[in-house]
Amino acid sequence: MAQAQKITPRAKDFSEWYGDVIMQAQLADYSPVRGCMVIRPHGYRMWELMQRALDDMIRETGHRNAYFPLFIPMSFFAKEAQHVEGFAKEVAVVTHTRLRATGKQGAEAIAVDPSSALEEPLVVRPTSETIIYAMFAKWIQSYRDLPLLLNQWANVVRWELRTRLFLRTTEFLWQEGHTAHVDEADAEREARLILGLYRRFAEEWMAMPVITGAKTESEKFAGALRTYALEALMQDNKALQAGTSHNLGQNFAKAFEVRYQTAAGGLEYVWNTSWGVTTRLIGALIMTHSDDNGLVAPPKLAPVQVAIVPIWKTDEEKQQLSAIGSRVKEDLEKAGLRVEFDARDNMKPGAKYFEWEGLGVPVRLEIGPRDLASGQVVLARRLGGKAPVPLQGVPASVTKALDEIQAALFAAARERREQNSIRGATKAQFIEFIKGRGGFAYGGFCGRGTCEAEIKQQTNATIRVLPDPEFRSKEAPKTCMWCGAPSIAEAVWAQAY
Amino acid sequence: MAQAQKITPRAKDFSEWYGDVIMQAQLADYSPVRGCMVIRPHGYRMWELMQRALDDMIRETGHRNAYFPLFIPMSFFAKEAQHVEGFAKEVAVVTHTRLRATGKQGAEAIAVDPSSALEEPLVVRPTSETIIYAMFAKWIQSYRDLPLLLNQWANVVRWELRTRLFLRTTEFLWQEGHTAHVDEADAEREARLILGLYRRFAEEWMAMPVITGAKTESEKFAGALRTYALEALMQDNKALQAGTSHNLGQNFAKAFEVRYQTAAGGLEYVWNTSWGVTTRLIGALIMTHSDDNGLVAPPKLAPVQVAIVPIWKTDEEKQQLSAIGSRVKEDLEKAGLRVEFDARDNMKPGAKYFEWEGLGVPVRLEIGPRDLASGQVVLARRLGGKAPVPLQGVPASVTKALDEIQAALFAAARERREQNSIRGATKAQFIEFIKGRGGFAYGGFCGRGTCEAEIKQQTNATIRVLPDPEFRSKEAPKTCMWCGAPSIAEAVWAQAY
Repeated sequence: MAQAQKITPRAKDFSEWYGDVIMQAQLADYSPVRGCMVIRPHGYRMWELMQRALDDMIRETGHRNAYFPLFIPMSFFAKEAQHVEGFAKEVAVVTHTRLRATGKQGAEAIAVDPSSALEEPLVVRPTSETIIYAMFAKWIQSYRDLPLLLNQWANVVRWELRTRLFLRTTEFLWQEGHTAHVDEADAEREARLILGLYRRFAEEWMAMPVITGAKTESEKFAGALRTYALEALMQDNKALQAGTSHNLGQNFAKAFEVRYQTAAGGLEYVWNTSWGVTTRLIGALIMTHSDDNGLVAPPKLAPVQVAIVPIWKTDEEKQQLSAIGSRVKEDLEKAGLRVEFDARDNMKPGAKYFEWEGLGVPVRLEIGPRDLASGQVVLARRLGGKAPVPLQGVPASVTKALDEIQAALFAAARERREQNSIRGATKAQFIEFIKGRGGFAYGGFCGRGTCEAEIKQQTNATIRVLPDPEFRSKEAPKTCMWCGAPSIAEAVWAQAY
Repeated sequence: MAQAQKITPRAKDFSEWYGDVIMQAQLADYSPVRGCMVIRPHGYRMWELMQRALDDMIRETGHRNAYFPLFIPMSFFAKEAQHVEGFAKEVAVVTHTRLRATGKQGAEAIAVDPSSALEEPLVVRPTSETIIYAMFAKWIQSYRDLPLLLNQWANVVRWELRTRLFLRTTEFLWQEGHTAHVDEADAEREARLILGLYRRFAEEWMAMPVITGAKTESEKFAGALRTYALEALMQDNKALQAGTSHNLGQNFAKAFEVRYQTAAGGLEYVWNTSWGVTTRLIGALIMTHSDDNGLVAPPKLAPVQVAIVPIWKTDEEKQQLSAIGSRVKEDLEKAGLRVEFDARDNMKPGAKYFEWEGLGVPVRLEIGPRDLASGQVVLARRLGGKAPVPLQGVPASVTKALDEIQAALFAAARERREQNSIRGATKAQFIEFIKGRGGFAYGGFCGRGTCEAEIKQQTNATIRVLPDPEFRSKEAPKTCMWCGAPSIAEAVWAQAY
């Protein structure tokens, strides 16, 4: 259970607040390994709920789960030039396979056994394109084997210099989809399908609005033809990339010789896609909804959706309320809800309320002797609002409240995002906006990397996406917001995590 | 889909047969990384079904899932003497964090960047006692924090010299439970609880009979006070350890300073347990039930439980049977079953039967125009037996058949095990049995490691367990089967995987 502690207000220090919320809700903890975190039960349960929902969506669209090795032979990274450049500076490399006693004392009692050096070092996967496409080359013979639609849930390692719980950790958990297709159109359809699936997950499960679109050349995945992404706006007005979907073209197929016989008898390279979302989504969820009292979890992903807190003084009340509380819990569980009945004896109700709030539980039911006498319980919402509801219809009342909360969280987050977006700003307004309160800035883009680099250097803002049609401004911008040259596409800029 | 290929008969070469069954059912494949396998969708689905069932059981007994880092600082292994001795010779060690271009061509174009050496090497977890108990030391303050009951689903790495798909791979997937308790009795209760839970899973889900009991000193886990295990007998009469549950005593608590304040105000070391089962269980399942036609999957864990194969000749028949087949599939899915309707056009029914057999699908439904006319379909069982069942009640007929098959598999495996066990053999009979057809040999044991070592050296048999009461012979042996000294316990010997 969470320890009572003071949470730094968002307005005072957003980053401190973020860490405090995580500690208060016991979502994660720092580990003795630099940059690696421990995901504690409350946080891991949230990840499992995310996994379950996403996995169902991935399966329903015809993908199957598999599992590929953690290690990748170093030489595989030499095969796709951009890919190795993207990852060479942040990989954990296994070079030996034994330890030996040194005869010394304490921490120095043990050392790497130099006689156990590997002939070829192994890289701990930072992502699995290379090892998976090496297997695809073995499995794919003909057009009948296509499309091949696989997904894996796994841990990956990227040696990050600056790390932050959930947002950027040396090891993280994710799913990575890998597919092979007969042609570019089919690969493109897949990459877009998944982008839509991720968007649906973000909106419907996380209650987190996102902008979808394409990345520019400078921001795309190492080895991809095109990268699509979804971007969300956090409460500190910094953007967070919540997922990516890549059309890899034939780059990896050529590097790993993944070819298929066409219906006409020819031999062609396949087209690949890869796509993933990570435990970073938990960080996104925290920074989208939570407040100065701690975690706010959207009902669909809350490990505990309802906490029942009895208020008793006498032993007789305790007996009576224990029976009622257990029955209400059972009724709610029958309705498919995740419920805790907090019968702890060594805590006052107020302290329990505080604790469940910090844990982000959307609905609390308070049951006291007086309520009971009048055949009702008090339904309190995490974000405010208390009202008595009839004891008879508790599951219906709670389900309705959870649905309303889920919808309200999404609406509030979208409203906040729109209030923190500007469109059609001049260069001066743009600089003031980005360096000031921050947010999403929409504007024309000339398509030149030099403009992008200059903007980044002066404002620390990057193009998050070239947004998909439905997110674009009503009137297409005519000139580049920065240099005034003709605009080739509207872009969304922001400082980002 | 599986490629038709010839499976080596068990009688000819059991090991070849095992590999053939895996390849035919596309459960796994060899990877380019020595000793690491790829778990293909059909095999991974089986693992997911196992995970789901086991996870429910683990949760129901009050455990919560969490996730700890993949890497463990090398110095942690110096803290528990037996533990490091058990694992030092088989760990993957990360020593560097960057690659660099060499200017050479091909596979040599890339090398480890020597300037990226870590100050302290990191060990890829072979098991997580050390890192988890380091965290326990941070989280546990008082008796109120106990018991602490955690579990994690993760990949681990042990640098094995001789590897074999599922049975012994460098990387494997598992769950590892880690708990902390106030005293020895509570830790012992936990270790036994989990052993029982594993047994129930093996029997009820895998249809695999097991013997439970304690390991001898020489076979227990590195760092444990007592190790309990479950042992199953494969079709080649070799034993396979299917899971272990350890009472770790206070060994790790002392090494990692995990102490708690007692109710009386004193300070005590906690008592730990750890326990795990791995993807090895898939190998156990294969070698328990499968036959010369390929995989036999127990219905509860079969990725596909029912394959519907239509038999059509004309386009009219095809249209009619497609409609019926889809409806039957839907009905079966509504009944909670995992179903495929095999409407492929480029294969004859016989080839489809062969393929579904190799994949281990317990029940096949054949639907032809004639059956349809008489309002029935043919229900064929993977292990033999074909009978028409009325089209109206297909879900009931199939559910009944699956229940019968599950029960029959368990009964047959138990019968086989008993037929391949001997009790009360003399030393000469024991040697003949173990070196001959093999199996489980029950006999008295003097408790001396020298006897164990001699038996192992001469027969390659080890004590699998000192069996729990219900598995023991009616009459307790009085003397050691090997040396004739007084017996301290009955033991079960076998050659083992």
